[in-house]
Amino acid sequence: MSLLIEADREEGYAGWHDVFRQVMPTMDIHWWNDPQVDPQDVEYVFCFDPEPGRLTTFPNLRLICAASVGVERIVRDPSWSRLIPLVRMGCQETTAQMADYVAWACLSAHRNLPRILQARDSGQWDKFTPAAVVANRRVGILGMGSLGGAAAKMLTKVGFKTAGWSRTRKSIPGVESFAGPDELDALLRQSDIVVCLMPGTPDTMGILNAERLALLPSGASIINVARSGHVVMPDLIAALESGRLSCAILDVFDKEPLPADSFLWKQPGVLVTSHLASTASQRSRAQYASDIIAAFERGEELPNRYDPEHGY
Amino acid sequence: MSLLIEADREEGYAGWHDVFRQVMPTMDIHWWNDPQVDPQDVEYVFCFDPEPGRLTTFPNLRLICAASVGVERIVRDPSWSRLIPLVRMGCQETTAQMADYVAWACLSAHRNLPRILQARDSGQWDKFTPAAVVANRRVGILGMGSLGGAAAKMLTKVGFKTAGWSRTRKSIPGVESFAGPDELDALLRQSDIVVCLMPGTPDTMGILNAERLALLPSGASIINVARSGHVVMPDLIAALESGRLSCAILDVFDKEPLPADSFLWKQPGVLVTSHLASTASQRSRAQYASDIIAAFERGEELPNRYDPEHGY
Repeated sequence: MSLLIEADREEGYAGWHDVFRQVMPTMDIHWWNDPQVDPQDVEYVFCFDPEPGRLTTFPNLRLICAASVGVERIVRDPSWSRLIPLVRMGCQETTAQMADYVAWACLSAHRNLPRILQARDSGQWDKFTPAAVVANRRVGILGMGSLGGAAAKMLTKVGFKTAGWSRTRKSIPGVESFAGPDELDALLRQSDIVVCLMPGTPDTMGILNAERLALLPSGASIINVARSGHVVMPDLIAALESGRLSCAILDVFDKEPLPADSFLWKQPGVLVTSHLASTASQRSRAQYASDIIAAFERGEELPNRYDPEHGY
Repeated sequence: MSLLIEADREEGYAGWHDVFRQVMPTMDIHWWNDPQVDPQDVEYVFCFDPEPGRLTTFPNLRLICAASVGVERIVRDPSWSRLIPLVRMGCQETTAQMADYVAWACLSAHRNLPRILQARDSGQWDKFTPAAVVANRRVGILGMGSLGGAAAKMLTKVGFKTAGWSRTRKSIPGVESFAGPDELDALLRQSDIVVCLMPGTPDTMGILNAERLALLPSGASIINVARSGHVVMPDLIAALESGRLSCAILDVFDKEPLPADSFLWKQPGVLVTSHLASTASQRSRAQYASDIIAAFERGEELPNRYDPEHGY
């Protein structure tokens, strides 16, 4: 029984090997390209961006554990059998980090951090009052999966008026639920701060375009911690430059690392963060994969399971 | 029965007059230097920075309402009778704004905002993981009055490990209490983030000096939203430059507005905000003063009352 590990180039294999050995001492753990491994023996894989066609070479593959929350790079390969369960990363550190990043970003939008940074850049003292108190700031979260749900709970604790939009209606105390395509516009019309936490699917790409940004209240802010393609960037920049929107905090980009000469670094109203909203430790992610494999072997229902019908 | 209003130069009198007229329609309201006012008629004053000796010119003065939380500029005048009650500003907006600023600043320290700003300044992508999750970040609040208490409650909701230090022991659920001079060092030794919210008194000036900063855990952060003089600035800068401390978010300065050529605007590790942590509206502050006057007239005990023995 083997677990094969495909590592993100940035992270390398050595660290993953060590932490998986610690959390799964009895598992036979190998590197993705280890020539010693017989494909027949591979029952589990932990992967991030497997080369198309590769997953089909393991005839006894039983479970795919994704190293990240988004699984586009795994599901873009149409060749593997969708009967094999694929589980998205859902470790506690991932959701906790996302929740505290979102709380930070919403408070930064609330206190107008871009305006504070403009004062810093120019050395011009600029004392101003937030346009509202937290209790009157309405945050709308697009995408209410494990990350969106954790962010929503955190925001209600901070005291924001919190609502979420998702495919199916959700029930979280204190969080207003909007569901389905028909209710998106209503959510946007009441959101002073929009947090984008949707999965990257054909349905959600380009969803925040000029037409939808125009529905937001004047002075609203956008926080994108999902996929760059959710936001139509020229439309967002135009809305910021016209003064309709006041702030965008962006953690995801078409091209990463964002090049040093990108205008976004210094764009007024924008704060760039380096895809760091949620960067759970290898230890925490390996433990989650280990727990999922154990649950699978006990025949339990798996959380965060990819649903081919909805694409996430 | 008259209420005399002394306005902060920045804010002017006209706005104050209007909001006080709305919240106290039966009160006779006058400007501080109105020549028509007979000093004999003045029973109440609302003031920020009265010229020394002026308060003693009102023989029938019954109550002093401060326009701000700090009252050093009122109490530096030794001439007025300390038998006249002085009430510090404590309106709900003041405490709510301070609580959300402190939550923002603690999350900014937690996520290392200065490092995010360094990436912004240089256009260098810098993906990094916070040194700990919020649940393992220990915040120590110096000063547990109405503002410190509100901040502490907010921080426990966000999930920080929260402790407070004050003259007398406090009992707030989930907040560890340290009291008196003997327990300050113990609090500092365990505080990853220190929030300074003390009153400005001779006892607290210069309290965060090199010796005390050296007690903090490596990589700790300082947030100062009280009085500039609480922190010995050269000692703080040395600790940041040596790498012992990682971040300082400063809202108060010796000279305000902070001059455009101050090194602080661009000092690595430092974020300057323009004394904007808590800027309650005139309406909200006038309402509070009105409520205090009403409570006084009913003979009730007054909250946020200046205590000459302790200097705040």
